[in-house]
This record gives sequence, C-alpha cells and structure tokens, in this order.
Amino acid sequence: MNDFTQLLEDLDGLLVTHPANVRYLSGFPHAEDAWLWLDAGGPLLLASPLYQNDLEAAGLPHLLGRPEAWPRLLAGRARGRVGFEAGRLPYATARRLGEALPGAELVPTQGRVEALRVRKRPEEVERIRRAMAIAREAYLEAQPRVRPGVPEIEVAAWLECGMRQRGAEGRAFPTIVASGENGAFPHAGAGPKALAEGELVTLDFGARHAGYHSDVTRTLALGEVPPQRRRLLAAVEAALEAAMARLGPGVPLAEPDRAARAVLEAEGLLAHYPHALGHGVGLEVHEAPRLSHRSPGVLEPGMVVTVEPGVYVPGLGGARIEELVWITEEGYQVLSAGM
Amino acid sequence: MNDFTQLLEDLDGLLVTHPANVRYLSGFPHAEDAWLWLDAGGPLLLASPLYQNDLEAAGLPHLLGRPEAWPRLLAGRARGRVGFEAGRLPYATARRLGEALPGAELVPTQGRVEALRVRKRPEEVERIRRAMAIAREAYLEAQPRVRPGVPEIEVAAWLECGMRQRGAEGRAFPTIVASGENGAFPHAGAGPKALAEGELVTLDFGARHAGYHSDVTRTLALGEVPPQRRRLLAAVEAALEAAMARLGPGVPLAEPDRAARAVLEAEGLLAHYPHALGHGVGLEVHEAPRLSHRSPGVLEPGMVVTVEPGVYVPGLGGARIEELVWITEEGYQVLSAGM
Repeated sequence: MNDFTQLLEDLDGLLVTHPANVRYLSGFPHAEDAWLWLDAGGPLLLASPLYQNDLEAAGLPHLLGRPEAWPRLLAGRARGRVGFEAGRLPYATARRLGEALPGAELVPTQGRVEALRVRKRPEEVERIRRAMAIAREAYLEAQPRVRPGVPEIEVAAWLECGMRQRGAEGRAFPTIVASGENGAFPHAGAGPKALAEGELVTLDFGARHAGYHSDVTRTLALGEVPPQRRRLLAAVEAALEAAMARLGPGVPLAEPDRAARAVLEAEGLLAHYPHALGHGVGLEVHEAPRLSHRSPGVLEPGMVVTVEPGVYVPGLGGARIEELVWITEEGYQVLSAGM
Repeated sequence: MNDFTQLLEDLDGLLVTHPANVRYLSGFPHAEDAWLWLDAGGPLLLASPLYQNDLEAAGLPHLLGRPEAWPRLLAGRARGRVGFEAGRLPYATARRLGEALPGAELVPTQGRVEALRVRKRPEEVERIRRAMAIAREAYLEAQPRVRPGVPEIEVAAWLECGMRQRGAEGRAFPTIVASGENGAFPHAGAGPKALAEGELVTLDFGARHAGYHSDVTRTLALGEVPPQRRRLLAAVEAALEAAMARLGPGVPLAEPDRAARAVLEAEGLLAHYPHALGHGVGLEVHEAPRLSHRSPGVLEPGMVVTVEPGVYVPGLGGARIEELVWITEEGYQVLSAGM
C-alpha cells in the first residue's frame, strides 16, 4: 500500500469505510467487506476472518474480526482527532464508533479521498481504457445483429456475455436496451419486448476491469424511422456536438451542459432532458465530478467523464448518446471512439 | 403499494432509505435511487426527476427532486416522532435531515422492515425459486464442460451467460470459480488459471430474478484427486449432511452450524472453517438471518437460507458445498436440489 498519511492533515487518524476509497488506498479487491485505518503508523485493513488467506498472501497489514467488532479493534490505536467518512458511514455505526473510542474526538469528514480520486493517475486511465476496449469489442460484435424482431433482453445478453468472454470482471451496471416507447425511460433495463422497424433503440452499457469501469451509450435507428423520432436523435446529436466543442482543461464544469441545454431548448426539447450532461467514471460508475449546468469548479487534466445528452418523450421514445472522455493537459481524448 | 402503516408503531412517520427495504415496500425497481416516506397518509416515494416517467407509468405516489433536496421535500410532512434507518442512513445525511426538519424528533430505528423480510411471502419464494431454476439450468449446461485445461474465467462466463440468456436480470454476485490452491480463498473470483487434473474446483454462483436472488455452491473433483484433497471434500459433505439433519421450523439458528462444526472439529479442520454456516437470501444475497453457532433465535417458516460449510487450506485448496433451503411449516425444501 502507498503511504497516504498526507490525507490526515489536521487529524491523528482517519477511518476510511467507503469501499471505492478503501480499494483506492489499499488495492484490496474485497474492499466492500473492509475498513481502512490510517494514522502516522501507516495503513491497516480491518476485515473478516473470511479474508485471512487473501490478506496474508497479499502481504497487506490487517486486523481480523467480525464487522461488529471493528470499532473495538481500533480502541488501542484511535486517539486524539479521529476522522470518519460522514457521507458514507451509517449513523448507528458512527455512534458505536464513538462508544468504542471514548478517548477520541470523532471528526466528520467528507470527500477527502474522493478529492484524490477525481484526477486519475495514468495506470487508472489505462484500466478504464481497457474496460472501454472490452465494451467496444462486444458492441462491434453485437451491433450488426441488432435488428427488428430481436428481444431487448437478448441484445443485452449479447453485450454482457461478449464483455465477460473478453475478460471483464462483469458489467459496469445493468445494461439498458430500450426500444421504441421504452426509450422514454432513461434507466429502462432490457425486457422481453422485440425491437421493431421504425423505432429508435438506446444501448447503454459498460464493463468492469480491475475495479474500474467504462460507460457508453449508442442510439440506433431501426429501418425507416418516422420524422418525429428522427428529430429526437438529431437533436441529441447536435447537443452532443455542442457539448464536446466545450471540453478541455480549465473549462467550467457547467459549460458543456449549458451548451447542450441551449441546443435542446432551441429544439423545444429541454423539458424532456431530466438529467445532467455527465459524471466522472472510475472505481465507481458514477463519481465526481458532476457535469451539470449548476456545477461549480472546472474540468481538470486526469478527469474521466461521460458526456451524455438525452431526451425522453412518453409515448414516442427517447435517444441518448454518451461518450467517455479523458481530459488531458492539452485537451481531451474520446475513450469511446471507434464505435 | 401495500399499506405498511403498521410499521409506524410509536412513530408519526418513518423514512425508509435502504434500497432493499424501499423495493420491498414499494415494488419500485429503481429503489437504489429512491427513499420511501411512510406516515398515516400512506407511502410516498422520493426520487430523482430521471424517474418521473417510470413513476407516472407505474402510478406510484412520489415527489421529485435531486437527492440533496429530499430532506427539504419532507419538511411539510415530517412532524412529531420521525424514525429513520440508523443502520443504513449515512451520518451526514441524518444530520441534514435533522436540520431540514427542525420541528421533528428524529428517532433512530433498526431492522423494522428487515424483520418483515425475514419470513418470505409465497410470491417471494416463487421468485427465489425461479432465480434458482435459472442458475440450475445454466450449471447443468456448463458442468459437463468443466474439465482440466479450461480457464476459471471461462467457466464463470459460461455460468453467467447461461443465466443471462435464460432471462436472469444478472448474476447475484461475482461468480467464484476457484481451482486448486485458489480454493483456499473463500471469496476467490475467477481468474486466468486453467483447471488441472487432481484439483478440486469450487463453483459458487447465483442469478437475480425480479429483484430476488439465488445462491448455490458445488465443488467438483477433477480426475484423480489426491487423498488429502479428497479428505477436504468428504469432510465438507459430512458437515453438510449433519447440518441439514438439524433444519426445520423452531430449531435454534445456532444448531445446524454447531452440528457442522462438530464434524469439522472431529476431522481436525475447524481452524480452516472461517465463516458461519449460512445466511438469508431474498432481495439481498446476504440478509437476515445469520446461521452461526452464536446466533440467537430460531428458524421460522418462510425463511430462505443457505447451508454452506467450507474448508480452506493455504497451499492445498478448499471445498464448499452450499444448498439453498426454504423452511416450511412442516420441515424444509431444498431449492437447490437437482444439481
């Protein structure tokens, strides 16, 4: 494990409990079942005896016990000002921690590790790039078979099996295959409905590789699509183009979404765009930063974000296109290119 | 939605935030992105505008807003004694709730909805049974192809694709295919290592259907397995048999695990059995009750639990067998039979 004692700042110790943060700092792949304790002595994992053999094989410093016992395991170490992740630790666990550590002053913290995670290190970008390549290859194989008559859920199975067979740890999230009127639900899953001529079908999917995720969306037109549906897709394409033209280091986070909204407003579709333009992608599929027209802050080199305008019209359908973008020192790279 | 106002007991309102509990009470499939408010007026979902079309189509009463705004959305309704799920709600969110509801007395609650979920309704058992059937069919198709030379990850892909193609919403958890020395890690994933003659290989997998899960484990012997490994598998088989002989309504939750431990102790393997015998399965893969030799309480009709003794010996390997069992009024049914 690296030395992350700079995270302590004004604290004598920091308890990290959010799985993505535990994984980021320790590399331990079963981070959802572990806590990480940081103090001047370095990092220490708390985990169930179930993982004893894993921790010993990996040479990770650790204490073993049932999760209920973890606060007590810290009793000998946690003194002075002890930070905890207030946005993640359940209220009752924070209370038990206080009872187990009567000599410590518990300090709620928020976003310390997340602030490090926003700018990806080169090896993290490579993992995301690989997760994206797996998704791309599965898509390129499946896409020619996406035709009228095929059930949505079969298309989802093609994508997910294609990713798994190419070495993905799994899908990044439940694959969306939303055709026709189902396209009006941004997080529609994939159901038994068969794709039909004249529909739009939205495919939103991604892979997980070495803990990191990819996330991409394509909307396909099936045969002769009537004008009112073509118009949805054309508007989303124009919104995407406007947003992409605003990307780059130092650009306000709000600016690409403002550009997309302006296009959709001119098309009379703004009321059908109920989400932000995008989000960070890394150890979590949705993480900081948020690309909303209300977001503070700026795009920074090392950020990996989605750009995904979409419109959803009940009874008619929907369209969304999503690119996965790495902000660089010079500009940006579209990780989801070539598909 | 059903009327669950009996959950209120001594409260004027109850805020349900744990996704499995929200799903249980509302049926809303995007429960991980919603809160449920209960008061004398009935249930009310709080969700992002992203789900407006879903909520309207399903006819579910709701309020829309960004998650940060949900505490404020409750301000007009939450008065008097207001319960929240203290084991689930983050500390910082509980604090924000308190600030948004100055007129309410916030009351930490634990396990109210979980207590309802422990005994499955018949329609819940049917969903679990279907999730189990999907996993069984995928296994029966893959099992003859599990042979020396095949990489672990390929076996995992067969199982997961087989489940998805049979209509699973997804896998219940990352599939474990742990061969040879990898068997010493109870939660080993599935890696590039090829299966080899003379090894044990543990397959632990399950499907998700309509929000409900299945969970089953088989350990296969590959060709001529040396005696010290055969002994692990035989001990686990004997421990399973002893535990299953103790199952039934009214039996102390601790008793089946005690029976399994007695067998493993007699075999000198107790130190290599680092987990409890089993856990409940339902809207979560791991939920109440816990079948540990230290658990209070008794098995009750309607519980669906795993029975899964296992031993893990570094450098040698491991074995685990897991059955999925429904406790009935008369005894029990093995949902994982026939595989």
